[in-house]
Amino acid sequence: MMDPESFLDVANQVTKLKMWPYFDIAHCAMCCLAVREDLGSGSHGFSRKHPLACWVSTMLVIYAGGFIAALLLGEPMLSPLKNTQSVLLATAVWYVIFYSPFDIGYKFAKFLPVKILIAALKEVYRTKKVYDGVSHAAKLFPNSWLIMIVIGVVKGNGGGFIKIAERLIRGVWTPNAIELLQPTFPTKACIAAAIVFVIDKKTDYISAPHALVYFGIVLFFVYFKLSSLLLGIHDPFLPFENLFCAVFMGGIFDAMQRAVSGKVAATADKNAAEKNGKAELSKKNE
Amino acid sequence: MMDPESFLDVANQVTKLKMWPYFDIAHCAMCCLAVREDLGSGSHGFSRKHPLACWVSTMLVIYAGGFIAALLLGEPMLSPLKNTQSVLLATAVWYVIFYSPFDIGYKFAKFLPVKILIAALKEVYRTKKVYDGVSHAAKLFPNSWLIMIVIGVVKGNGGGFIKIAERLIRGVWTPNAIELLQPTFPTKACIAAAIVFVIDKKTDYISAPHALVYFGIVLFFVYFKLSSLLLGIHDPFLPFENLFCAVFMGGIFDAMQRAVSGKVAATADKNAAEKNGKAELSKKNE
Amino acid sequence: MMDPESFLDVANQVTKLKMWPYFDIAHCAMCCLAVREDLGSGSHGFSRKHPLACWVSTMLVIYAGGFIAALLLGEPMLSPLKNTQSVLLATAVWYVIFYSPFDIGYKFAKFLPVKILIAALKEVYRTKKVYDGVSHAAKLFPNSWLIMIVIGVVKGNGGGFIKIAERLIRGVWTPNAIELLQPTFPTKACIAAAIVFVIDKKTDYISAPHALVYFGIVLFFVYFKLSSLLLGIHDPFLPFENLFCAVFMGGIFDAMQRAVSGKVAATADKNAAEKNGKAELSKKNE
Repeated sequence: MMDPESFLDVANQVTKLKMWPYFDIAHCAMCCLAVREDLGSGSHGFSRKHPLACWVSTMLVIYAGGFIAALLLGEPMLSPLKNTQSVLLATAVWYVIFYSPFDIGYKFAKFLPVKILIAALKEVYRTKKVYDGVSHAAKLFPNSWLIMIVIGVVKGNGGGFIKIAERLIRGVWTPNAIELLQPTFPTKACIAAAIVFVIDKKTDYISAPHALVYFGIVLFFVYFKLSSLLLGIHDPFLPFENLFCAVFMGGIFDAMQRAVSGKVAATADKNAAEKNGKAELSKKNE
Repeated sequence: MMDPESFLDVANQVTKLKMWPYFDIAHCAMCCLAVREDLGSGSHGFSRKHPLACWVSTMLVIYAGGFIAALLLGEPMLSPLKNTQSVLLATAVWYVIFYSPFDIGYKFAKFLPVKILIAALKEVYRTKKVYDGVSHAAKLFPNSWLIMIVIGVVKGNGGGFIKIAERLIRGVWTPNAIELLQPTFPTKACIAAAIVFVIDKKTDYISAPHALVYFGIVLFFVYFKLSSLLLGIHDPFLPFENLFCAVFMGGIFDAMQRAVSGKVAATADKNAAEKNGKAELSKKNE
Repeated sequence: MMDPESFLDVANQVTKLKMWPYFDIAHCAMCCLAVREDLGSGSHGFSRKHPLACWVSTMLVIYAGGFIAALLLGEPMLSPLKNTQSVLLATAVWYVIFYSPFDIGYKFAKFLPVKILIAALKEVYRTKKVYDGVSHAAKLFPNSWLIMIVIGVVKGNGGGFIKIAERLIRGVWTPNAIELLQPTFPTKACIAAAIVFVIDKKTDYISAPHALVYFGIVLFFVYFKLSSLLLGIHDPFLPFENLFCAVFMGGIFDAMQRAVSGKVAATADKNAAEKNGKAELSKKNE
């Protein structure tokens, strides 16, 4: 087993990991795969007929968190594109996934060991984005926890929130694909991570060093992503949610209400039955 | 009757009314009722199945004016949420209206005397928001009357303008619910109020003291809201609108045009009739 | 023929052309015509029944470039409206096109020589807007070519990009009318012009004086607009696009892949045929 000090060292190094360029590549690749899978069997035709819309919608997904956060914070929405090197890298990854000869790029990225690797890298990147989002919002609105959490979540899972706009650019309108209506696991995990980061930043409740908290969240993201890829476990939050909804979101009170009105209904039934019985009796007596 | 001085005193006090927390509660309650009525008979199921979407869409309605105004003025869109106390109050009201046991909260707010009270309070709050919107825009764009009016209107009746986005968050897409297409009475009243405030602020046409103007608009809003609730009078602007449309928006000219082309058509008919007549005559003569 | 010096003089004068008010009027008139044609045969009824929505959607088209650019750059979205004189002019043009008695305004603007004149003026105005967009973005993001091009394009052809929102305000939802999905000629021309302006501004590749570059782009825009109006030539970019798509967007590789898999399939067919042949032979031999 690892001794605690070297564990903390590892955690410290994870906090300071350089993202460029490997984590960026992994993030872009995962986004391109998501766009291509969203296109389904029409992806080949669409990418050939509408390369501009394909490129713009992919860029929208890759920089989704930055775009939405900038919009919500009144900053220039295009600022995520200001780093030309990063845009060129994203374009290169998009090109390889969609247009490589014999579809080598796509098949390579879909190859399970490769996919596991880039998925894991992307989750590390996600943690950094949630943390950066929370920190950035904390600078602008130091007293508003809600804004910090919102910015952390949209930075962490921008792709989910932008899905409706991304599809619209491809001419497909799916008003039901609202992330908030059926939050997916990444959204829930980002909410949890953002809350932990805010608590870590703004209060003294968490006594562990920051690097450990950060590392813990990285492990949490990577662990559940790999579980989902390998074991098909999709949502560990579900039991907690169900419990919360049962207690606070009307579950128990609704059941009580049903029970009470059921009692009333049962009484009514009984009365009706008694009446019927009496009627039958009286009939018999006739 | 009140003597003028004490009337001015009342008006002055109305101008300086403290909004927090009673007017805020009334505003939140009216917004929650609107959301719940918009959901219709599905509100119970929806609030139980999608509490997050329900909360977000309600918050969107409650802070609609702030969100839209911030977007239009290039300010952080989330800034209306920066006051945590206000968000907590809004959340509490939302919880009471949607999830209180035996639906007490909803039934209480719908009880006519209570509803009249909170509706009246909300109209006072609305006046303040229109005025704040106009003042805020006047600081940023001191020479643009149009921008002042637009910001005043969206602050005063944000809920109407955000309806399409609010429903979208609940997965319902109604492209026909555009406020501008069929402006409701609150929108028209806010336009009128914003114009009065801009004239009061920027010109000398209104010689009455500001407090009186403000108080007059408060009375106007409250009076028509109560008429609408109690007497079913919905739109006192309609006759003026019809007159305006008839004079300026083509009504009279269209009628003239129809008359002229009708004359032409009538002449044509006459000629045709004469020809027919002649033909008949010639037939007879044969 | 013109001597080079006087040609440069003309180019210099074009660069400094005063836009107000003739070019503004031409731009407004073209936008109003576009809105009216988009409404089709329902334009008369719509403009009479929904004057507010008609006005707002027309203003949206007229100031489209400014609105979208402001949104993308985090500036106040309403700032294009801050010049009251310009808004009044736009409103006057809108009124004349939609509501003039006997439809004189519309018929006058549609009269071919007039339409050619205002279309040509509008293209001069478009060049200025593309150039202003690129310059403005270059001030904010001096190193990002992509942002400069994007802002130049949306300023130059804002009406195309806002079509979906403009129709939505009129209660019509057409998710397929995404400019990026099927870019029209003005969009492509604006992309080309913006790229030339960025190269001219940021590098030394173009040795011609700036005024000449600008004048060349003006001529390019006017020439192709007039070709489109008079000769029905719609898209001179198409052959270049098809070439580019064939080389880079999968065209050649897809063909190769089809050829290879065709070969495989052919081989398979041949094998199958041989087998069948053998089977037949063996049948005969039996």
